[in-house]
Order: sequence, then structure tokens, then C-alpha cells
Amino acid sequence: MIRLHHSVSARSFRPLWMFEELGLPYELVMHPFPPRVHDEAFLEINPLGTVPALFDGEVRMTESSAICQYLASRHPEAGLEVGPDEPAYADYLNFLHFGEATLTVPQTLVLRYGHFEPPERRQPQVVEDYARWFLSRLRTLEPRLASEPFICAGRFTAADVSVGYALMLASHIGLSERFKPAAADYWRRLQGREAFQRALTAQHDAALEQGVSPKPAMEIG
Amino acid sequence: MIRLHHSVSARSFRPLWMFEELGLPYELVMHPFPPRVHDEAFLEINPLGTVPALFDGEVRMTESSAICQYLASRHPEAGLEVGPDEPAYADYLNFLHFGEATLTVPQTLVLRYGHFEPPERRQPQVVEDYARWFLSRLRTLEPRLASEPFICAGRFTAADVSVGYALMLASHIGLSERFKPAAADYWRRLQGREAFQRALTAQHDAALEQGVSPKPAMEIG
Repeated sequence: MIRLHHSVSARSFRPLWMFEELGLPYELVMHPFPPRVHDEAFLEINPLGTVPALFDGEVRMTESSAICQYLASRHPEAGLEVGPDEPAYADYLNFLHFGEATLTVPQTLVLRYGHFEPPERRQPQVVEDYARWFLSRLRTLEPRLASEPFICAGRFTAADVSVGYALMLASHIGLSERFKPAAADYWRRLQGREAFQRALTAQHDAALEQGVSPKPAMEIG
Repeated sequence: MIRLHHSVSARSFRPLWMFEELGLPYELVMHPFPPRVHDEAFLEINPLGTVPALFDGEVRMTESSAICQYLASRHPEAGLEVGPDEPAYADYLNFLHFGEATLTVPQTLVLRYGHFEPPERRQPQVVEDYARWFLSRLRTLEPRLASEPFICAGRFTAADVSVGYALMLASHIGLSERFKPAAADYWRRLQGREAFQRALTAQHDAALEQGVSPKPAMEIG
């Protein structure tokens, strides 16, 4: 069975959401966030100190958007992959990366220097620089999201999980109030998916069972 | 013919390097870095304001590591792709993302707050935080790079271009002196590749021809 090391609503939510979309059996191992701070032994599980850490037989992966592509390609019958022979293949690859490198990483700066660092190390300028950076990059999706139900290929794919997690993080750190209309609608559509809701329930239940707080550590306010 | 919008030694070096590895014909359109600052009309080419912007028939891509995967899969005969049926497929996807999200983005913080921002907006603490972040993540590759010639699959692939660009950027911003031995050796091996050297020559020549400085804007010191 696939084992996923996960913290509530951290990037490892992407693989969890994929499991639920694909109907896969899986084992969740819950960690307080950030895991390496709470438990130095976690570095033996993942030397990067981060979640996700995914183990599937011989496979070991740590990059959440790469895991989405991996899982989608292992289960092509579900249609969450866009194959190399489809016209949207380039968009699919582009948005898998865009969701993480362009839309998620800037938010981790907002979180770090506005929330996790002790007061004397906070950096309001960096928080504002990267909140704006995130919102300006997100705005470039408005024309696309106003005319398409999903980020590419006319159907829900792993690229929506990559981009969708960035919107979930934004909603935790108070940036979703500044979404433009098409992004706000898209985010509502994603939240309405049964698999998304099952993933929320699964992490909540697993946290309680394993004695970890079910409250997302990255929730601000 | 594929058209690539490029700035000297920016992330768009990844697709350029791939073109040379694959022996593809291409057109380089050179821009001073960062392109949107020097030319607001660039936003019509790429609303994100960033390089790369790649145009290939109907295809338009902006994420450099996604472009590497796209090009590799379009030319499977070159062996720069790791296919879903190969044991290293998961590693391949993981390192394509790792090269950008984990190894390159932190360096852009070092660059922004240590170099590009005006003096009153510089943030030495952020520069140091993310220089250390980058180096600690890079160190996790030492065991792998000490025992393998390339990042995965036992051969040079698009994932080496993704990770290799992060090492190139580090060498421009003064971080390569702090590489551990296996990363330093790997970086020397990558620089020794003929395609890498041809890509350096191509960007130099195109910059001079198009009246753009051939000096990398991100070179510190």
C-alpha cells in the first residue's frame, strides 16, 4: 500500500487529494507542521525535512506536483493524466509546474515571514512583496478560467490538483479574499468535488486518530 | 521553428540547453533581464513578465522545467526522457520539479534581496536564510551524486538540465564555492558537455547580434 507522510493542509494534501480522486488505498502518517521542527528523526524519513514523503514499493518521492503526475500516469484509465498525444499536453506539464513553483512557493514566503518566524525575524516587506507576486501571477489565469471549467484539456486533471492546492493555501493565509472572479469560481468548483471533501475528512480523522492537531498550522487569523 | 524568448543565463537557459542537447533548430529572441522591467510590451508576449516564453506551433509554455520534459518527450530517440515504464520514472519527475521549486526558487530570493532591489529594500536576513536553505537542500544530493554520474536513470536526462541550471545560477551568485565535493564534481561534468558549451556560445552570440549585454544580469561580484 502507498504510504504518505502528511501534515494537515500542507503540500502533501496534493497526493492525498489524488488518492481520493483515483480511489486508491493508502496509509496516512500524520506529522505536526513543519515536521522536522517537531521531530528531528523525521530527517531519516525524508532528508529534506519536508512533507510530502511518499513511499510506493521501491519508489520514494518528495515533490508534491511530481507525485500528482506520477499517480495520474500510473492510472491512465481515470483520465487525470494528459497524454503526450493530446493537444493539451504542453499546458498540462506547464500547469503542473506553475501550480507549485509560481503559485505556491511565493506564498511560503508570506507564511514564513508573516507567521512562522519569531517576531524579531518577521519581514512585513517580504510578506507584502510575495502576496502581491502571487496575486499578480494568479491574475494571468483569469481569461482561461473564465472560459474553461478546468485549467487545461477541458477536464479535471492532475494539473488542477497542483494549481488547486495553491488556492487552498491562499484561503488559509487570507489571500483568497483578493481572488478575481474567475479564480474564485474555479476555487469553489474544486472545493465542491467529492474527492476534495473526502481528502479533508481523511486528514481530519487521521490527525485525531494519531494525536496530531487537526487545525492547519498555516491558517492565519 | 521553435522560438524562445531568453535572457542571458536566466531560467530560459534550460530550454536553450535542451535544444543543443537535442540538436534542434531554434530562434532565440534576447531580452535584458528582467524583461518586463526593460520593456512593458513584453507582457504581451508573456503576461507573467518572465522568461522563458516558448512558442512551438500552437504550443506556448512558460515554465522552464516543464519545457525540458516537453522537449524530451517530443524526441524520445535522444534518451533525454525517462519513460513511465523505466524504473527511474518517479525519480525523473521528482528531480524535474526539485531542480526548480526546491533548488532554484530559493536562489531567486538571494538575488532579489541581495542584488536587484534598491539598497533601502535589501534584506540581508532573507539572503542568508535562503542561501542556507538552498545549500542544505543541495547537500541531500551528495550520496546520490557521489555514486551516480547523473541525477537519475544512470544517464543524462532532462532532469539534469533542471537541476544543472540551479547549479549554474549558484555559480553566478557566489554559492558554488560552498558546494560539497560530489555536487562540485557533478557541476564540472555538466559544464564539460559540448551541448552546454554550445548553449553558452549561442546566447553570447545572440546577445551581441541583438544589441543586448552578454553579461549575465544575475552575476554577483
